Amino acid sequence: MTQPKTLEQLLAPTGDPAWVLIEEGFDPLRETSVESRFAISNGFLGVRGVRATTRGTRWVAPARTYVAGLFDTPDTTYATPGLVPAADWLQIRLLVNGEPLVQHPGEVRSHRMTLDLRRGALLSESSGLTRADLNVHLKTLRLVSMSERALGLQLIEMTVEAGVVDVTVEASFEGVGLGLLSDRLDQDLGVWHTAHSGKGLAMATAAALQIDGRDVPATALGPFKLTWSWTTQPGQAVSFQRSVAIARGDVKDVDPGHEARDQLDRGQRIGWRGVLVAHEAAWSSRWQRSDVTVEGDAKAQKALRFALYHLNSAANPGDERVSIGARALTGDDYRGHVFWDTEIFLLPFYTLTWPEAARALLMYRFHTLDAARAKATGMGYRGAFYAWESADTGDEMTPTQAVGPDRKIIKILCGTQEQHISADVAYAVWYYWQATGDEAFLLDAGAEIVLETGRFWASRAQPEADGLCHIRGVIGPDEYHEHIDDNAFTNVMARWTIRRALDVAALLRKHWPDRWASLAQRLKLNEVELKQWQNVADVIATGLDPTTGLFEQFAGYFALEDIDLALYAGRSVPMDVVLGRERTQQSQVVKQADVVALLGLLPEEFAGTSGVANFRYYDQRCSHGSSLSRAMHGLAAARLGQSDVALRYFLETADIDLSDTKVAIDGGVHIAALGGIWMVAVFGFGGLTIRDDGIAIDPHLPASWLRLAFSLQWRRSHLKVRIEQARTLIEATLESGEPMTIFIGGEPYELRPGSPVRRSAEAALN
Amino acid sequence: MTQPKTLEQLLAPTGDPAWVLIEEGFDPLRETSVESRFAISNGFLGVRGVRATTRGTRWVAPARTYVAGLFDTPDTTYATPGLVPAADWLQIRLLVNGEPLVQHPGEVRSHRMTLDLRRGALLSESSGLTRADLNVHLKTLRLVSMSERALGLQLIEMTVEAGVVDVTVEASFEGVGLGLLSDRLDQDLGVWHTAHSGKGLAMATAAALQIDGRDVPATALGPFKLTWSWTTQPGQAVSFQRSVAIARGDVKDVDPGHEARDQLDRGQRIGWRGVLVAHEAAWSSRWQRSDVTVEGDAKAQKALRFALYHLNSAANPGDERVSIGARALTGDDYRGHVFWDTEIFLLPFYTLTWPEAARALLMYRFHTLDAARAKATGMGYRGAFYAWESADTGDEMTPTQAVGPDRKIIKILCGTQEQHISADVAYAVWYYWQATGDEAFLLDAGAEIVLETGRFWASRAQPEADGLCHIRGVIGPDEYHEHIDDNAFTNVMARWTIRRALDVAALLRKHWPDRWASLAQRLKLNEVELKQWQNVADVIATGLDPTTGLFEQFAGYFALEDIDLALYAGRSVPMDVVLGRERTQQSQVVKQADVVALLGLLPEEFAGTSGVANFRYYDQRCSHGSSLSRAMHGLAAARLGQSDVALRYFLETADIDLSDTKVAIDGGVHIAALGGIWMVAVFGFGGLTIRDDGIAIDPHLPASWLRLAFSLQWRRSHLKVRIEQARTLIEATLESGEPMTIFIGGEPYELRPGSPVRRSAEAALN
Repeated sequence: MTQPKTLEQLLAPTGDPAWVLIEEGFDPLRETSVESRFAISNGFLGVRGVRATTRGTRWVAPARTYVAGLFDTPDTTYATPGLVPAADWLQIRLLVNGEPLVQHPGEVRSHRMTLDLRRGALLSESSGLTRADLNVHLKTLRLVSMSERALGLQLIEMTVEAGVVDVTVEASFEGVGLGLLSDRLDQDLGVWHTAHSGKGLAMATAAALQIDGRDVPATALGPFKLTWSWTTQPGQAVSFQRSVAIARGDVKDVDPGHEARDQLDRGQRIGWRGVLVAHEAAWSSRWQRSDVTVEGDAKAQKALRFALYHLNSAANPGDERVSIGARALTGDDYRGHVFWDTEIFLLPFYTLTWPEAARALLMYRFHTLDAARAKATGMGYRGAFYAWESADTGDEMTPTQAVGPDRKIIKILCGTQEQHISADVAYAVWYYWQATGDEAFLLDAGAEIVLETGRFWASRAQPEADGLCHIRGVIGPDEYHEHIDDNAFTNVMARWTIRRALDVAALLRKHWPDRWASLAQRLKLNEVELKQWQNVADVIATGLDPTTGLFEQFAGYFALEDIDLALYAGRSVPMDVVLGRERTQQSQVVKQADVVALLGLLPEEFAGTSGVANFRYYDQRCSHGSSLSRAMHGLAAARLGQSDVALRYFLETADIDLSDTKVAIDGGVHIAALGGIWMVAVFGFGGLTIRDDGIAIDPHLPASWLRLAFSLQWRRSHLKVRIEQARTLIEATLESGEPMTIFIGGEPYELRPGSPVRRSAEAALN
Repeated sequence: MTQPKTLEQLLAPTGDPAWVLIEEGFDPLRETSVESRFAISNGFLGVRGVRATTRGTRWVAPARTYVAGLFDTPDTTYATPGLVPAADWLQIRLLVNGEPLVQHPGEVRSHRMTLDLRRGALLSESSGLTRADLNVHLKTLRLVSMSERALGLQLIEMTVEAGVVDVTVEASFEGVGLGLLSDRLDQDLGVWHTAHSGKGLAMATAAALQIDGRDVPATALGPFKLTWSWTTQPGQAVSFQRSVAIARGDVKDVDPGHEARDQLDRGQRIGWRGVLVAHEAAWSSRWQRSDVTVEGDAKAQKALRFALYHLNSAANPGDERVSIGARALTGDDYRGHVFWDTEIFLLPFYTLTWPEAARALLMYRFHTLDAARAKATGMGYRGAFYAWESADTGDEMTPTQAVGPDRKIIKILCGTQEQHISADVAYAVWYYWQATGDEAFLLDAGAEIVLETGRFWASRAQPEADGLCHIRGVIGPDEYHEHIDDNAFTNVMARWTIRRALDVAALLRKHWPDRWASLAQRLKLNEVELKQWQNVADVIATGLDPTTGLFEQFAGYFALEDIDLALYAGRSVPMDVVLGRERTQQSQVVKQADVVALLGLLPEEFAGTSGVANFRYYDQRCSHGSSLSRAMHGLAAARLGQSDVALRYFLETADIDLSDTKVAIDGGVHIAALGGIWMVAVFGFGGLTIRDDGIAIDPHLPASWLRLAFSLQWRRSHLKVRIEQARTLIEATLESGEPMTIFIGGEPYELRPGSPVRRSAEAALN
């Protein structure tokens, strides 16, 4: 049996630089970006990387602990719900004669913050908390547990280097009750409810402090406030541990305080070391299932690890009532609302490395299906039209106006017009079903989502005199063009959704006729309607020009002003700001991957060389005014063999959250862009395709990538794929589970336990 | 003797729509702009137009009461001082059974806020504070006194329209101690000090409530919190009055609490009606001295009244230790810092309509002269180099970096390079001296400022091999071009400053030889140095091309890329954002009036038609990326007879703060742009010029302006000028003071009491 680690060892970050992010010192202009980047989360709780110690009366930005699903309408600025932060449970102060030792972080001599990606923990070390009469050295660790998601843990080790003075350590919560109404505030337990949404929140806490290994009794000063006072001696080692347990209450009049206290008690029983060990084991397991390694490109490796860290942090397989907001639980932007980002940019990762998490995210869409049905009905359509911005209820949360970058008030039409969301959800459901073969999910939820979204599209596309069905008055992924007709992305995805709905109907009828009978009855689905779906799918307009192979992004797009984006290379803001909204709307300038996104999602819709033709046309016209855009272009470019272009997009996407040239991530990390990084690496460079009968690999590594390896799960098989550039070798190993088929260069190979498949890529591809 | 007005009359705004600004209802996106626009101020106190009633737990923006000169470094975001807000003394809530009656303003049935420009008061009227069991109607008034600047007054009249319920009115302060450390908090008096700057603040308050004319006793619930409880009856008339007195302490260990209490007592002795009457009389007097009327253009008239309201609100003749920040006391932008805005865009108005206020503002520059000398010395120059951003001490407060509109961190070089500030201050001093003949000011302060700034420029401009003196490495008003050489604006203003310094020396030597002797001795000024100044002024490079009459904005400017701004007409952001900073720096795109500003300030430097030539050249290249720019172009255009162009600039300048197409004024009104509006009207359209021997009038009214009238003071003469378009008549009336000369069409006319000068403009101009 191994010796338990010392506190010193536990407070030391992972040594390998590929596994850590480090921030030295204090830079007020960058501080809020760093707080996003260094956030910790477990999909239930999210804590921004705000310092816990040495804080003055005011701070650059308030500390934030988010609780997934804790939505309310806390103020009058917005009429729509947003995440309400819980109290910051990490606040700690060191007082000398009642005065805080350090007023602000600029005065600390040295401060290093380390995000330990491998262990899922934020560590810090600072020295120079110094006065003439005292000098201390501090190390800290914080985590929110990956194994017990209700739990948070804070550890501090303080070494007195010099000084004999009377000090007090004060541990408290900050922002107690901010935006919440309190039901009770005991010494170690608080229970609140939201003002409007009827949600509850409970926080329970316990803390202890030892000097040279001996417990020091605390003085309780009211809710969540404890102090410890003593006289320092040089060489003193002071340890501090604080636990928090947080529970969300979804049912009115059920007190979440009991659950919080139970969770805290459970954590106390196994002790903080036990909590830490279980947390690290859970992270280790996540890395085992999801790690992607790159040799030859340290920057790409760091970008992937950072992306995987936040992706693994963002999901919670245990909660079907929440999904992942546009900034996950790392910041205030978009107020925790869920977009197509989750289904298109995040679900692929979860589906292939963490199907339990993917399932919970898709169940969120099932639980909000009634709201989607109500939205469709309210607008005169059938089936399910999902909210463009979704919170806890699934009701439409998109604001109808906002302040633009030029400080003008602009109307936002996405809530009614950005309808492709209903195809995106179906896409993710089908993809999950294909990759996992999860029959229970299909029968309980997935089939109904696909049928109801297919039905939506069949009612949405209307036959016209030209014999085609048209979808008029939408916004595609390219939000620069509003109220357009026959958006290629929307229409082709709609057709695809209708066809999958027909597939689902056939599948159920064949394999689960009873289930089909009851579902068809409940949904009032009959043969006549299925026939009508088929008709719509057969004649829907797509904008495809058969001579050039180009999809026209929407009706009339090719006639718009063609602007050479190269002339605007110096610009530092999006093109709609450069040109003004009106001129942009009358131009071919594209905000973000639209036809290219279609190429990314449904490459089979692009016959022969039309993928190349469409990519060339739209790549020149895309201004990448969304953080989602470049990853989709990178994915498409990699699949087309344009590895250099793809790598540039990959690295530019990584820069969104990792680079310091912009301080753009105050509001949280761009979790969909991080999902996109994984997609470019695995789908693009790795060339992975999911098939009904296995997986296929068709890699295109960038020249600098000597080796790429990734793990994935297909149905009940866990496998690892390794691609070597120099030896042009593809190796797939079945790590556990059932035998399966892997296609390399179109050829099927049986993958069996203990018998990896190794193929020279060149041989396979020729 | 007239009957005292009823409360109802007092709470009714001025009826004439030209004297009021009205805002109906609630629009969260525009709320903070409205709060800036509807701010009240008296130059010592400034209160944003935040609603005092019906507020929920959180608000769009915090309420703000600013105290001029109360600077501190309250948080860690900025290393430089900013204004610290005082507590919001206007908070009021109506509770029914302990629950606030209205949670947020969107729920109020009707709400109208009226800024009464004539009376300097903010009024509101709302109805529909309604529950099933209660219906009340509210009228409110707030002011900060123009006659006793320490005093604020709040009046509320509440009429119970229906309901018999137990209610409580709760009057409190909000944000007590925010950013300030409290020394004492009594029931009705609070004393605080700033954390770092050693300033003090005291607030004393008194409040009373009557029902149907009978006083109701209050319950005191702790510092600044009083409640009144009773049972409502239909028809009840409830009156509420609250006074506040605020004192700033500049000397450490002197308690400002006594002064606040004395001021409050004085207000209590004359009563709230007395305070209101004195305030209105003071405003009436300000309008008498400064009003500008336009007939034929209601929009222009409203813009002028709005500008004059904020200009008269912003100054305080009684405080020489403060100046006017870039947003006056109406918002947080620029943290209360003082720029060249004050001297160039505000002083003309104050000098000619309120010389006592102008004098105090210039004395602020005198009191910060030592800091300017220290800054010059620290950079290796002589004389006085004023801070580009100045707070209470006069030390340089310009941040060295900031986050740009593209979220990149940019370096800010203005603090060291935007040196023209030292000429701008001298310009305002000389202009004041010319217009007022205030000998005491000249001898006590003005001469020293002009001499020390002249000395700065004489040391700053260095002789080079070409025989000329050059000023290298500066930023002109056009901040798109940094570290440039021989900026025409800077160099010509520098030459002008040196020459005025020589004039001052000659003047003092001639009229006040003793004063000159002592000043020269103290400043260690001798003949040799004066001679050197003369030499520098004689040979300073100016960039004037004698063949074209064009000033080159700086050395090398004409060789930069010439970009046609018309191609970017749709843009919604500044040109440096469109093109990127680097390309902009390499282009002739101008941020704001630079050579045109020189034309505005020193038209005598533009011989013959060179004014027209320069205006034409730079007007095409100016992108107006600053709120200061258009007014200067409007002034120049009007003087050149281009009234249509000038009127467009006038109206666009007015739109900055008055229009709702942009919600850009969260951070306060653009007080310099408002000063610019007055300048375009009086100097531009009115054609007023100040001369050493009188004033000259050369008007160019826009076609739509039927009549323009304005008041001004020249030396000891108060006069009124009226210009009629239709009858092309100029009329000047001496309202009080000494006879003086007025020049019309170059001809002098004696203006005497009771004998106005009337001239047909055509006759005069031909």
